[in-house]
Amino acid sequence: MAIGLSNGAANGGKSSLALVEKLSKDHDLVLRTFRMLIADLCQQFGGGHPGGAIGMAAIGVALWRYVMRYAPHTPDYFNRDRFVLSNGHTCLFQYSFLHLTGYKAMTFDQLKSYHSDRVDALCPGHPEIEHEGIEVTTGPLGQGIANAVGLAMATKNLAATFNKPGYDVVNNHTWCMIGDACLQEGVGLEAISFAGHLKLNNLTVIYDNNQITCDGSVDLTNTEDINAKMRASGWDVIDVEDGCYDIEGLVKALEQGRAATEKPTFINVRTVIGLGSHVAGTATAHGAAFGVPNVADMKKANGFNPDEHFVVGETVREFFQDLPERGQSLVQNWKQLVDEYTVKYPELGNQFQQRVRGELPSNWKDLVPTSFPDKPTASRASSGLIFNPMAKDIPSFMVGTADLSPSVNMIWPGKVDFQHPDLRTTCNINGNYSGRYIHYGIREHAMCAISNGLAAYAPNTIIPTTSSFFMFYLYAAPAVRMGALQHLQVIHCATHDSIGMGEDGPTHQPIELAALYRAMPNLLYIRPGDSEETAGAWITAIEAKKTPTIISTSRHALPQLKQTRRDGVAKGAYVLEEADNAIITLIGVGAELSFALDVAEQLKSKGIVARVISFPSQRLFEQQSVEYRRETLRRHKGIPAVVIEPYAPNGWERYADAGISIRRFGHSLPGKAAYKFFGYETGVMADKVTQYLDGLAKGELVKGEFVDL
Amino acid sequence: MAIGLSNGAANGGKSSLALVEKLSKDHDLVLRTFRMLIADLCQQFGGGHPGGAIGMAAIGVALWRYVMRYAPHTPDYFNRDRFVLSNGHTCLFQYSFLHLTGYKAMTFDQLKSYHSDRVDALCPGHPEIEHEGIEVTTGPLGQGIANAVGLAMATKNLAATFNKPGYDVVNNHTWCMIGDACLQEGVGLEAISFAGHLKLNNLTVIYDNNQITCDGSVDLTNTEDINAKMRASGWDVIDVEDGCYDIEGLVKALEQGRAATEKPTFINVRTVIGLGSHVAGTATAHGAAFGVPNVADMKKANGFNPDEHFVVGETVREFFQDLPERGQSLVQNWKQLVDEYTVKYPELGNQFQQRVRGELPSNWKDLVPTSFPDKPTASRASSGLIFNPMAKDIPSFMVGTADLSPSVNMIWPGKVDFQHPDLRTTCNINGNYSGRYIHYGIREHAMCAISNGLAAYAPNTIIPTTSSFFMFYLYAAPAVRMGALQHLQVIHCATHDSIGMGEDGPTHQPIELAALYRAMPNLLYIRPGDSEETAGAWITAIEAKKTPTIISTSRHALPQLKQTRRDGVAKGAYVLEEADNAIITLIGVGAELSFALDVAEQLKSKGIVARVISFPSQRLFEQQSVEYRRETLRRHKGIPAVVIEPYAPNGWERYADAGISIRRFGHSLPGKAAYKFFGYETGVMADKVTQYLDGLAKGELVKGEFVDL
Repeated sequence: MAIGLSNGAANGGKSSLALVEKLSKDHDLVLRTFRMLIADLCQQFGGGHPGGAIGMAAIGVALWRYVMRYAPHTPDYFNRDRFVLSNGHTCLFQYSFLHLTGYKAMTFDQLKSYHSDRVDALCPGHPEIEHEGIEVTTGPLGQGIANAVGLAMATKNLAATFNKPGYDVVNNHTWCMIGDACLQEGVGLEAISFAGHLKLNNLTVIYDNNQITCDGSVDLTNTEDINAKMRASGWDVIDVEDGCYDIEGLVKALEQGRAATEKPTFINVRTVIGLGSHVAGTATAHGAAFGVPNVADMKKANGFNPDEHFVVGETVREFFQDLPERGQSLVQNWKQLVDEYTVKYPELGNQFQQRVRGELPSNWKDLVPTSFPDKPTASRASSGLIFNPMAKDIPSFMVGTADLSPSVNMIWPGKVDFQHPDLRTTCNINGNYSGRYIHYGIREHAMCAISNGLAAYAPNTIIPTTSSFFMFYLYAAPAVRMGALQHLQVIHCATHDSIGMGEDGPTHQPIELAALYRAMPNLLYIRPGDSEETAGAWITAIEAKKTPTIISTSRHALPQLKQTRRDGVAKGAYVLEEADNAIITLIGVGAELSFALDVAEQLKSKGIVARVISFPSQRLFEQQSVEYRRETLRRHKGIPAVVIEPYAPNGWERYADAGISIRRFGHSLPGKAAYKFFGYETGVMADKVTQYLDGLAKGELVKGEFVDL
Repeated sequence: MAIGLSNGAANGGKSSLALVEKLSKDHDLVLRTFRMLIADLCQQFGGGHPGGAIGMAAIGVALWRYVMRYAPHTPDYFNRDRFVLSNGHTCLFQYSFLHLTGYKAMTFDQLKSYHSDRVDALCPGHPEIEHEGIEVTTGPLGQGIANAVGLAMATKNLAATFNKPGYDVVNNHTWCMIGDACLQEGVGLEAISFAGHLKLNNLTVIYDNNQITCDGSVDLTNTEDINAKMRASGWDVIDVEDGCYDIEGLVKALEQGRAATEKPTFINVRTVIGLGSHVAGTATAHGAAFGVPNVADMKKANGFNPDEHFVVGETVREFFQDLPERGQSLVQNWKQLVDEYTVKYPELGNQFQQRVRGELPSNWKDLVPTSFPDKPTASRASSGLIFNPMAKDIPSFMVGTADLSPSVNMIWPGKVDFQHPDLRTTCNINGNYSGRYIHYGIREHAMCAISNGLAAYAPNTIIPTTSSFFMFYLYAAPAVRMGALQHLQVIHCATHDSIGMGEDGPTHQPIELAALYRAMPNLLYIRPGDSEETAGAWITAIEAKKTPTIISTSRHALPQLKQTRRDGVAKGAYVLEEADNAIITLIGVGAELSFALDVAEQLKSKGIVARVISFPSQRLFEQQSVEYRRETLRRHKGIPAVVIEPYAPNGWERYADAGISIRRFGHSLPGKAAYKFFGYETGVMADKVTQYLDGLAKGELVKGEFVDL
């Protein structure tokens, strides 16, 4: 128990304030030094974002010197506090504190590489998860605060699952710095609302309230009562009036955030952008260097020599110097705690350590069904058949939905919701923080951004899944992209793909969306064609430890095909029906895979021999050898290929010579009628292929020109 | 003056309540009839969304019978109130009232076509703008409320521009029906916040507060204090406790919304989803028919014959019967008002009528510069050079930005902001409702959705432009898509395309985004290569009356090229440098257009003759004749083409045989260094092309296989 406490109290609560008192004599120098350093770094580059970092200096001192629990020499210490810079353009703020607090990678040389053309620089224009001390990549506004909500949820879930009295093996706090954008961007607002609902008292958001955005005063665009709005959304609000200098006030507010028992905390900190510069308090301070003479003036006014650059004196170095050691003691205490915990609770302890290592139970694949009922099955239903047993038994999975539980089939017997336990009393809603089913509400974008946070807590400790209609992954696309960019394993379960969901109409028919996700780097977009292929999609997604996946399924029933193979899915494309005398290859995809087989059958009756390949994932196919790809497609042997998919053909031109595709928006009709309307009937398609082959034979078509059939 | 008033008071204010009293004896029958009708319509289809429409019946009666000003027989009456069904899945609500109030197209037969396989049905799964009485297509949640904000802004702008004392030629109100989604979806929250800021007192949002979403109780996902949040966001809030029956209370609340003087109005209406059915008040009522026996029971309980379907008795018909006539008198009064206005204010009157017709001044093209300075110019700067003179002089343009005024160069001398005039006093911000520069804040998604509303007010009466970094049009993509689907002319000015913006890093480098917009139907994505091509892009965008356009420009300076032609842009692609003995075609695009010319020049020094084409827009190119396309590309003559663009190549495979493209995320480096890092140096590219030609000559490469160089 003592260890649990000492872990928690290494620098917490009252002791922080005692330390503030002891060290406060140096505050003024530290702040001035920090501000001059930022001005120099931007001036050296001739650009960048100085204003915010300068305005936030005191907040940084309060966080990194006094309040946050972290270990500069063990950056991935599991129970560290998480810090998210949601206003990522102020990255120099974070880089500079990482340097001052002793992160080894962030040398002074590296710090000075800000915006340089050094390819291995650790100071890119926005924080990047690959680098020491950075929890998530930020920059696109509103993402970071949603990530922070996910990080705080991860803590809650792990704590509720593993902590025992006296053994808080997970109890870190999440701190998130925001600017005005997170209070304007929709994804930020969704996340704020959801965090309030979940009563995440382990989350503190610090608002750098400088009243300035790129366009000028915030009053140009936002005159709402932010504090009242946050309170209405279920947050505690603390004001700090003098955020530029009042380190003690900031520490008090932050410690109050950590000590919160009922709600997340919003600290509204008044600051001055570009404090002390000639453009202080104006939009000009936001995104440009101040200019050589202005930096010189600023230094003179602050008692610095204008001819010296990047000056960090001994006093300032000493001010931060014991942080690595403090951090290592946190690490040591935690390790000891976990060891004792594992002795006392061996099963839990081993499970915990497995999770810390990011490992699944070694037999996870045994839970995947080896066969399926013969009857036609919607692939969204297949998805549930395959995944729900794993979700039930493997606590790494946290399963979310954007208010489409009845549609996505991701509920397992006995599932428990991730909710604050109080909801049982107040709203008759069952759930607790150890629950792993997340009702995100109608918030697709936040769902995916929060899932990135769940995944970023520690590599593969939590594997989040999301679910919605495929079309609404357009709402979530910026977050899906950030997951791909950060190599986070998040599995997106998208149902109602294709036009087979029919009557919802063109607003719901994702004609062009696959083109985006097929082009997006490090993202697997997989359209399985039946239950067997859906199993392949899930296995691939679970094995992709550094890549998010979209499993794109149908609302409507699909025939179970004899020829499909789960290991074929892993290759992206594979042959379903081979024929050495084939003169055409038909490419079937996902919900329309059976169409290709049907068309081949009908062509056969006309004396035309077709091969059929299944092509669930372009990116997986690209990862195969040239030989495999050629042997699968056989276009190098002069056999043309026709792809059948009711989507925009963009991108298929790489693999096919012609497409039975759609190049307009959809139409509201019942599923079968929609297929008919767009020409996806076997006879019509077979005729199109025949005419295409005729056109080739007669020389009316030019080889190498993609043909829209 | 009398006319102005009578126009306003045809059925307004106290007279509504008097009418309620007179007709109230029939309310109960009307409500029951409406509810049975909805149950029948869904049951006939065996699906659809009955619950919401049934719960909202009384709201509909209050709106269509008493409060809204519209003309069923002149559906496009210019000064009509606008109604937006943001919870579009409850479309039967709207369709049924359109039928009952006498819209001619919505016959009883058409109403019964709900979800049928009739291809010309007027009752698709969500409301579609193409049909009488529908202001905007809705369905994707949160879009409608943002459209409504745009519609209300359009009224404000036109009123401030044209109204004169006694001559309110534009004074319509906007009504927006929402469910829980608009209070959860980010785009809805952005729009709510912005509407409060703008003090749009001509906007009333009606919240169908039935406490149910697909997943169950709203308490699962949202427990905030909505009314307090709306008040904090600058809205007036009115509660209606018995929204299922209290038509008088609803009319009072709605009239209060119309009479609001300072703020938009939020009416929180308690309803019961699926009222009177066996699943009333549960999620089951949301998205499925009730089942034959349950509908029968419901009818019995409501005094209807369970064996009769689609029963609308004479009393109910009579209840609505005088609405077409009332509507026509509104139309007549308005026409007379406009005539008298035009006599009294001939210049304004003619301008107004030109706007009503959706016409620009006939000489608008004269404002486009015919030449440009020789010095290298960022295409974002070119964009300003071209458009700002038009924006200044042509009041049809409303110019918006998502907090990137300093980056997008869309400010003209003397521009006035679109703001509530009070802001001058309260925040020292200048502007008024006749202003046409819109600071949207950091709200890309709402910016584009609101712009759809501005454009939907009346065809081409307002041409909205938006602006942001290209990458952040991913945030806005669902709204851009809805604009394309609805054939709304909105011009999106996207700067910082390509990787030439460098140091902001991979979060800001739009590697895969063009693939989405090139695949999106009815959307012009144009990447101009210099000032001349930017002029071509703008002319094309302004002439595209039924299509939105993204003009994708660079942050960095681009050389002014001698060979570019604005009329070439309109064709999508055109030849910059021809050579009959060329063995390769280089395709240059946008910010990298000059690279193609440089590579051709360097190849020439190696004895390789290359043709060069500029390819700013794939969709425009597709609209050209086969002959033009072939003559431009010349691939049919066996000349291979290489595209040079630092984007994912997806889609280029249709036009090119090889690509100098990027298939990973970007890298944070200064612009030039980023180009170098990814191999976009003339020598490197020329070598790649040479090797490619060698590979072809030696037969190492297979013709027809796209090659990533």
